[in-house]
Amino acid sequence: MVSADALSITSVDVMVEGTHFRLGGHCRPEDVGHRALAGALSDLAAMGAPAGEAYLAVVAPPELDDEDVLALHRGAEALAEATGTTIAGGDFARGPALTVAVTVVGWAGAEDRLVGRDGAQPGDLVGVTGALGASAAGLAVLDGLALGDDALVQRHLRPWPRLLEGRALAAAGASAMLDLSDGLASDALRLAEASGVAIELDAGALPLAEGVAEVAAELGRDGAELAATGGEDYELCACVPPEHRDAAGLTWIGEVHAGEPELRWRGAPSGAAAWRGFEY
Amino acid sequence: MVSADALSITSVDVMVEGTHFRLGGHCRPEDVGHRALAGALSDLAAMGAPAGEAYLAVVAPPELDDEDVLALHRGAEALAEATGTTIAGGDFARGPALTVAVTVVGWAGAEDRLVGRDGAQPGDLVGVTGALGASAAGLAVLDGLALGDDALVQRHLRPWPRLLEGRALAAAGASAMLDLSDGLASDALRLAEASGVAIELDAGALPLAEGVAEVAAELGRDGAELAATGGEDYELCACVPPEHRDAAGLTWIGEVHAGEPELRWRGAPSGAAAWRGFEY
Repeated sequence: MVSADALSITSVDVMVEGTHFRLGGHCRPEDVGHRALAGALSDLAAMGAPAGEAYLAVVAPPELDDEDVLALHRGAEALAEATGTTIAGGDFARGPALTVAVTVVGWAGAEDRLVGRDGAQPGDLVGVTGALGASAAGLAVLDGLALGDDALVQRHLRPWPRLLEGRALAAAGASAMLDLSDGLASDALRLAEASGVAIELDAGALPLAEGVAEVAAELGRDGAELAATGGEDYELCACVPPEHRDAAGLTWIGEVHAGEPELRWRGAPSGAAAWRGFEY
Repeated sequence: MVSADALSITSVDVMVEGTHFRLGGHCRPEDVGHRALAGALSDLAAMGAPAGEAYLAVVAPPELDDEDVLALHRGAEALAEATGTTIAGGDFARGPALTVAVTVVGWAGAEDRLVGRDGAQPGDLVGVTGALGASAAGLAVLDGLALGDDALVQRHLRPWPRLLEGRALAAAGASAMLDLSDGLASDALRLAEASGVAIELDAGALPLAEGVAEVAAELGRDGAELAATGGEDYELCACVPPEHRDAAGLTWIGEVHAGEPELRWRGAPSGAAAWRGFEY
């Protein structure tokens, strides 16, 4: 039982082996636990909501023993502690593929300002937290398709939900926000559609994570494309009225315009209109 | 976002194809949706908590098309409407086996009396709602191991969470309660252990659902054994102080005694001490 605050915000995120991750090699059960919880908490971060409780439903295949399942929970527990989240329950079953469904609940007091996806206004600036492309580059390194630093691999295996940044952005007056799970090109279009605005982004302004340009070059691709289409960075993309730009602490990458919902690129290769998920 | 009441109670329940159900034949996606939500709501029923919201994380294999997935959600939605539950969110992914993880949230006001598993006291009476054994008998019929009515099959495919009964029992002074998911023999032992008491049940007093005795006979088993060990009836087992017996509306099947936590049977075959899950 949990004593309730004024508003609860609940989000559910499911990850399945083979679809969202491949166990083995560098990807251990601890990483899966961390990553599943991070993905769910990132949804709260994108609303500017503080984290409350998390509930983990785990389905494990026969080849994972009890120690593996405990390790998965340890990975989630460590992230929970670091983010002030309480793992308050869950369920476990056996099945053919490792599956982790995480429900997170955030509690907001009447004084908290929550942000949706639908509030972007023409004239707003568009910015992102952190740097982009690290997770996709790390996956390419994991898959042996490129040489790269272990730091990139860790950014893929251990993404960090931007809870503090999300709350700060909400307090600083962000008009709309989401977390980058599918990749900036897809997610910014989603934001444009939810808000009924056009978003124009500057490909040359995207903050590339260290080592991303080099991995992209090894894959014969543009660094900006990898940053725009690589999923699971879990950075936040926020729209902010220009008068609040100094308080936001973001890297500015574009602007919001009136018009049909769409995503436009400037300074990008001619194929950028088709940028969606990164594939190699 | 949900406006919060004084206390929230959250429960998570995961069901996996092959472990908890087998799609095909009589078991359709609608049934899976109903059953997964029913299992989760039953946990709230066992606390006497009113249902609030439900969140469904669904993983579907490639052989289920979009219509099947919609049908699953329709099955859950119909039960949600009938029980006053709001399906407020969820997630979807593809994977090798149909998996449904349901998180339910119940809201209790300060005036609501909630019941745990640990409050049973020596002298309490033990009772159950409804009748037992229908789900296991229905599964045997589904599996072609016995002849039986379609009503039994429906009791297996479409269990009903005893939300109203649970609230009434809480209000009527029940000291401890749980829902029968694994089977009375296992679940009553769990209640005894949580409360630190001995529970004695009368095998002859178990209310058998219609047709259960006949299916048990076809399987060469005792009707009471099937009722005591068949899982997923989702009836409630409650301990009630004797002064509240008239208000409870239960079938009385035993009593709570002081002593080491254990489950004892009277009027049962000699092997009853080993009764756990039903297997054929």
